[in-house]
Parts: sequence; structure tokens; C-alpha cells
Amino acid sequence: MDKYKKEMPISYTFGIFPTFELLKHKTTYVQKVMVHEKLTITPDIQNMLDFCKQHDILVEFCTKQIEKIADKENTMVVGVFSKYEATIERGKNHIVLVNPSDMGNLGTIMRTALGFDVKNIAIIAPCVDIFNPKAIRASMGAVFSLNIQIYNSFAEYLTQHGNNHMYPFMLKGTQTLQTLGKPCAPFSLIFGNEGSGLDDSFLSIGTSVVIKHSPAIDSLNLAISVALALYTMR
Amino acid sequence: MDKYKKEMPISYTFGIFPTFELLKHKTTYVQKVMVHEKLTITPDIQNMLDFCKQHDILVEFCTKQIEKIADKENTMVVGVFSKYEATIERGKNHIVLVNPSDMGNLGTIMRTALGFDVKNIAIIAPCVDIFNPKAIRASMGAVFSLNIQIYNSFAEYLTQHGNNHMYPFMLKGTQTLQTLGKPCAPFSLIFGNEGSGLDDSFLSIGTSVVIKHSPAIDSLNLAISVALALYTMR
Repeated sequence: MDKYKKEMPISYTFGIFPTFELLKHKTTYVQKVMVHEKLTITPDIQNMLDFCKQHDILVEFCTKQIEKIADKENTMVVGVFSKYEATIERGKNHIVLVNPSDMGNLGTIMRTALGFDVKNIAIIAPCVDIFNPKAIRASMGAVFSLNIQIYNSFAEYLTQHGNNHMYPFMLKGTQTLQTLGKPCAPFSLIFGNEGSGLDDSFLSIGTSVVIKHSPAIDSLNLAISVALALYTMR
Repeated sequence: MDKYKKEMPISYTFGIFPTFELLKHKTTYVQKVMVHEKLTITPDIQNMLDFCKQHDILVEFCTKQIEKIADKENTMVVGVFSKYEATIERGKNHIVLVNPSDMGNLGTIMRTALGFDVKNIAIIAPCVDIFNPKAIRASMGAVFSLNIQIYNSFAEYLTQHGNNHMYPFMLKGTQTLQTLGKPCAPFSLIFGNEGSGLDDSFLSIGTSVVIKHSPAIDSLNLAISVALALYTMR
């Protein structure tokens, strides 16, 4: 077993919390759970081990393996799973991320989306690897409860979900989030890349929205923008 | 010049954007600006170089030094500055972070606070190093426009700013952010550590607040919680 690389057909969850989320929500994709010999059996760990037993999931002691592949010291539990593809649901609220490039942001967005009941996320490639263990860690395992679908272009997304009410978020937006009021549902909240945002072509799509902030900063962080939009619009 | 360590009396800004924020807002603490020989002179870079000339700030070509100390490849500009202490203002709105432990979160909180016009941040030790280059980078240089003061305990903060209206954010909060309405100003929005939150003693301080989210997640990310509170309450 090797350190994670994007090309691999499998990925890892590091730590008890994301591993248990994987086990509960994507049981059939789990290959095994690896545990460190120094693992202390807390009630949470016992629950996880019981779950594995009930579902015939292999649990192995492999201290050296864990130390080889983990990205942090003191990782006691690792889940190994096959990557899978998912499809977002038609007619539901979506978040659409165009070319996201930061794994921490992506994970935080997943966790926030799940927290505010938006379970469908479309991602327009090129984009970061949604199964990178860092993204999984930042999502606190939320990735396993969401439907996440990768599209090659925004146009491709539109052909499938063009009936959703589109809200592109951009500095040039024509409405402010502060005054927008309740959005029409089902909605698609669309956000650009961390550095470059959405290009001007999105001004002609649906209702463009700006989140006003002081001129002392250039822009808000992407995950922060998504959270403010979700919180205000749901 | 060495790779950054917490004990050092100096720190670094990596990249043009945070370096220019340092130059503009903390001019007197700048020791020098280092530039890479492969630097391309864009209009932004030219503005920065002009600023250095006007303020007698040393600009040095030191490619090897930069490659030694930078945390990412392709760093073209590095600011070197003396660390400094600041004092938060009495009678203004504050954010109070109790034992924050993640540099990315801290930086994102700084950037968001500046974006929503809260310029005073109290941090209760133990906490992450506010001058770590990773925190500076995540703040996009906002750290240089804020007053950030470290306190040894929350009690010490209270003795100086006990007249502020206190709003501890915690899962057991008695009010929801959604129904709270406009807070009394000046206010202190208080947030606990990423993992452990605020302990129950904060329930008896001011008005405790919870941000409601779906039970599918354990809690919101710290920087997200701060942003939602700031956005809603300002």
C-alpha cells in the first residue's frame, strides 16, 4: 500500500471520525480498516469495531503501513476504500464549484453544505481531487454523505440542470446577498475559482449576486462565501 | 536567514499580495524585501518597488535565500519584518478566539473580520502563532490591518473589556443566531477551540448563541462559524 496519489483507484480516510463516516455511508466501497497497535479502545472505537464486525469489514493491525501512508503523526485508524462515481439529483438545490483549486476549501465547503442540507455538489473540471485524503479530512467525512459529480464544463452541467434557478456569485454581481431575499428553488449557487472567480460570461446567467464586504480586503475566502450564501438563502 | 520558527524575533510574508499589505500597514516594522531573480516586473510589482524606494526600504535580490525559506515553490517576493505587539481598542466590537489551534482557520478569520469591519481580535493563549507565515498567507495580509492582542486567560480579557456585550458561541447556546436579531454594541463574539469548543462556564457569560445546523454534521468549521456570526450580527 502506497502513499496516496490521484491516479490510484483507492483512497484513505485518516482518523476515527472520517473513517466512521465512510463506514456508515459508503459501506460497500470499504476495502478494509487498518488500526495502529497503539490504538486505545474508547467507546467510539469500540462502536466502529462492532460496526465492522456486523458488516464483515476486515480490520487489520498494520502499524508500519499506517506510518508509511498517513499524512500526520499519531494516526491510529485508516479506512481504505475504492473510489466511486456519484450523480447529483435533478430538481434539488445544488452548489456548483467552477475549477476549485484548494483541498482545504473544498472539504470545508462539503462539511458546510451537509450542515445546511444541500446534498448535491457539481464540480466543473479542472479541479482538485475530491478523494484526496486532505479534502476528506477537511470535510470531516461529509464527502461520504453528499452526491458529488464532476462535469467537464459548465455547459455540460447546464444541459442537465438548466431548469434550476441559477445564482452565480461574483464581485460584479447585480444583486447583493444582503438584499436578495429568499431565492427561487430549486437553486444552483455557482462559485468560481479561488484566485480568478467567475468570468464575465456568468453575468448573463440567472441572477448574479455579490456579497458586499469592506474595501479593505480583495475578496472573501471561497468557503466563507459559500457558507454565507447557503446560510442566507436556504 | 533561516526557515521560520516561532522563537524567531522576525517573520516573513511570502508573495506579492501579503508583502504589499505588510509594507502599507506596518511600514516601520519592515526590515527588507527580498526578490527572486526570475521575478517579472508587473504593474503591481512596480508599485511595490516604488513604495519601497519612497520609504527607504531595502530591496535585495536573494534567490537562494528565498528558495531556502519559502514554504512553496515559485515564491518571487518575500517581506522580512520584526514581530510586534498590538493592543485592541476599548469600546469597539471584538472577536475573541479561545485557544485556536489551526493556522489556516486563524488566517481566514482575520481576512473575514477585516472584510466585515471588525478590527480588534483578542486571542486567549495557548494558541497558534499569529505570525507564522501560513497564518499570514491565509489572512492574505489582513493580519497587518488588525489589532490582535494575546491574553493569558479569558479572565484577563474580561478585566479589560468586561463592559462589552458578550456573546459566546457554543453548541449549548441558549439563543439561535437565526433568531437573535441585532446584538447590543460594542460586542465580543467569543469562539472556542476547533476541537473542544467553549466549556460550560461560558454559559453564564452574556448571551450564549448556537448556530443551528443539520444533525448530519458534528459542528461547523470555526472560521465558518465566525463568518456567519459576523455577517449576521454586524
